Amino acid sequence: MKSSNPAITSPKGFRASGIHCGLKKTDAPDLALILSDIPAHVAGVYTKNLVKGHSLQRTIQLIGQYKTTRGVLINSGNANACVGPIGYQDAEKAAKAVAALVQCESHDILTCSTGVIGQRLHMDVLLSGIPALTAALSSSQDAGHEAMKAIMTTDLVPKESSATLMIGGKKITLSGMAKGSGMIHPNLATMIGIITTDAAVSSGLLQNLLGKAVIHTFNRVSVDGDTSVCDSIIMMANGLSGAEEILPDTQECEIFYEALTQICTDLSRMIAQDGEGATKLIEVEVAGAATANDAYLVVLAICRSPLCKTMIFGEDANVGRILTAAGYSGATFDPENVDIAIGGLPVCAGGMVLPFDEAAARQILHKSEVVITITLHEGSYSDRMWTCDFSYDYVKINGSYRS
Amino acid sequence: MKSSNPAITSPKGFRASGIHCGLKKTDAPDLALILSDIPAHVAGVYTKNLVKGHSLQRTIQLIGQYKTTRGVLINSGNANACVGPIGYQDAEKAAKAVAALVQCESHDILTCSTGVIGQRLHMDVLLSGIPALTAALSSSQDAGHEAMKAIMTTDLVPKESSATLMIGGKKITLSGMAKGSGMIHPNLATMIGIITTDAAVSSGLLQNLLGKAVIHTFNRVSVDGDTSVCDSIIMMANGLSGAEEILPDTQECEIFYEALTQICTDLSRMIAQDGEGATKLIEVEVAGAATANDAYLVVLAICRSPLCKTMIFGEDANVGRILTAAGYSGATFDPENVDIAIGGLPVCAGGMVLPFDEAAARQILHKSEVVITITLHEGSYSDRMWTCDFSYDYVKINGSYRS
Repeated sequence: MKSSNPAITSPKGFRASGIHCGLKKTDAPDLALILSDIPAHVAGVYTKNLVKGHSLQRTIQLIGQYKTTRGVLINSGNANACVGPIGYQDAEKAAKAVAALVQCESHDILTCSTGVIGQRLHMDVLLSGIPALTAALSSSQDAGHEAMKAIMTTDLVPKESSATLMIGGKKITLSGMAKGSGMIHPNLATMIGIITTDAAVSSGLLQNLLGKAVIHTFNRVSVDGDTSVCDSIIMMANGLSGAEEILPDTQECEIFYEALTQICTDLSRMIAQDGEGATKLIEVEVAGAATANDAYLVVLAICRSPLCKTMIFGEDANVGRILTAAGYSGATFDPENVDIAIGGLPVCAGGMVLPFDEAAARQILHKSEVVITITLHEGSYSDRMWTCDFSYDYVKINGSYRS
Repeated sequence: MKSSNPAITSPKGFRASGIHCGLKKTDAPDLALILSDIPAHVAGVYTKNLVKGHSLQRTIQLIGQYKTTRGVLINSGNANACVGPIGYQDAEKAAKAVAALVQCESHDILTCSTGVIGQRLHMDVLLSGIPALTAALSSSQDAGHEAMKAIMTTDLVPKESSATLMIGGKKITLSGMAKGSGMIHPNLATMIGIITTDAAVSSGLLQNLLGKAVIHTFNRVSVDGDTSVCDSIIMMANGLSGAEEILPDTQECEIFYEALTQICTDLSRMIAQDGEGATKLIEVEVAGAATANDAYLVVLAICRSPLCKTMIFGEDANVGRILTAAGYSGATFDPENVDIAIGGLPVCAGGMVLPFDEAAARQILHKSEVVITITLHEGSYSDRMWTCDFSYDYVKINGSYRS
């Protein structure tokens, strides 16, 4: 069951806080902490970019080594990336300051950073905020929302989703929050996602389920084709629901996985919808591909094409561009069999652009969500990906990001 | 030697013309003809998009079958693509009308179309223009320039380049013209290039030399990552210079190839410089890659990255984005060895962003040509690619292209 007021603190035994310490030039919140009352099993999925931010490198190492954690410290305004070995030391120092105040080891506190690349963190500013941050920790929904606000960079809206389910008569809650608006592309983008649950799940199973859920959710969002150096999805399970442990290959596991996928799907759609400068959410569906990879290549090419994305911004059904992107995607298919529909309106059949009702097409493209469907008639594989349109504002936002 | 007033008619025995017949909504020229006085050996390099325009499909078939041609009819304003079998017949009909007036077979006239995809050619309009088009044929430079103007779509400037060389005491001339501004990416883009020469070269050698020259010139230009369905480079050699035939593996062949590469390079840079909405030409150079493919992947990723391209538009040296794009390019290298310079100014060394002079960087990025150099320190392979910045105008042009 989805929650009407989702917050990262919804599962039992999780507290959170978000404050402004001064890393951002504005007075927006820029420091967040999500803390489990007891050590939680933890799993993570990370950017495949060769270049990785220092805070993230530390997190990857700690999750690999310990498999449990107490929480995650996240700063926005600075990515703590490409600054040399000092970046790792800065992340460690920040974690240590938090650990001292919440009574745990520094390796119990993971670190995430997002913002400008290539500038050293203002450590005095960051460290000065830690006492207020830990003092503000609370299990309230509002505290969760404050943490969400503190991880936003160019995001315009917070992104939170929760679900509950019953296992053996006990209520289990999962909750996720995510930031990400630009530099968004599969594997993964300038995206930070945190998912908490009070279910009891081993770290191995958690890693397995999270890895699977990400493939068709966070890995199917593209805003601009750029894959950042700081992206990660971290999931913590503290078992405080009191429900029995979820074991692999059980019905309980399946229900839990469904809820997890739902949260990842919600957050992924929200990221595409809030893409930098976006005015519309675009969902691209491909059916009838000969292989799973062909289906993926076609959705990827269309979601990445600046020409398709500016066309949708301009609400101009220039169908040839969709067919063109499919044609260069690398997928194998006969162009003369391709059907395309925009919002259910057939605009191309058998590779020929149809004489469709332009006014109807414009009305469809004027909506805040646009679904493009491509049928290849080559086989039975399908895929689906989300992106957004490409507007003047994307250029404006990214022409002067550091200023 | 480069020519100061290059035109496609510069080589001996080539005539050209360009007129407005009415395919474009404006009164700009939209129909061009380039004709050799005698059958010329011909070679072509074509888009690798699975979807190919009908005029181009016809051209590919004819070049493959006959290896010689009299000329090329090119229309702008309509791509003659994705309209079904009638598209091929329309191209054939147009060629036939030209052939009747210049006394040759219809298969002696190749066809190229560029413009909107998915709308049938207005054949009555096109055919009505053919008598004026053939009547205007001339070997003057001006006639060459008129043909150039008639193949432009969103191009703002004509793109022409010529070179002369001496072989056995005889002057040989090569001349090229090209159009292309958006939907530009390797293999190939919405690009049409025509190269003429009065050298005597077999069609086999011509194909070989053109194929090689394209790899590091036209295949190293990206405006937006979109590969169109109509792209082709067609080269004609009619032998009317009177110079002896150029044979493979001779010094003459090498000199000829150098001149051809120079023309292709000139035209490629002009295409990037005139990219839709572009305010700057960007040249990205990678050195020290472990393999040729790694070098290519890095230049490609940077030239394709909307974040790098908007950053240069905004004249904001956000170096992290260059390193980020290299990191997700798929190339193998150690991020901690990477050096980056912008216009000769070192901005990153050993994977660390340097504290560089921001004012100096802004001055460099303010110029009309920006060179970005990345050194990987992994091996001895290098590559180079051209692109342009991403501006508001790109979005404007492509949000309403058909209107």
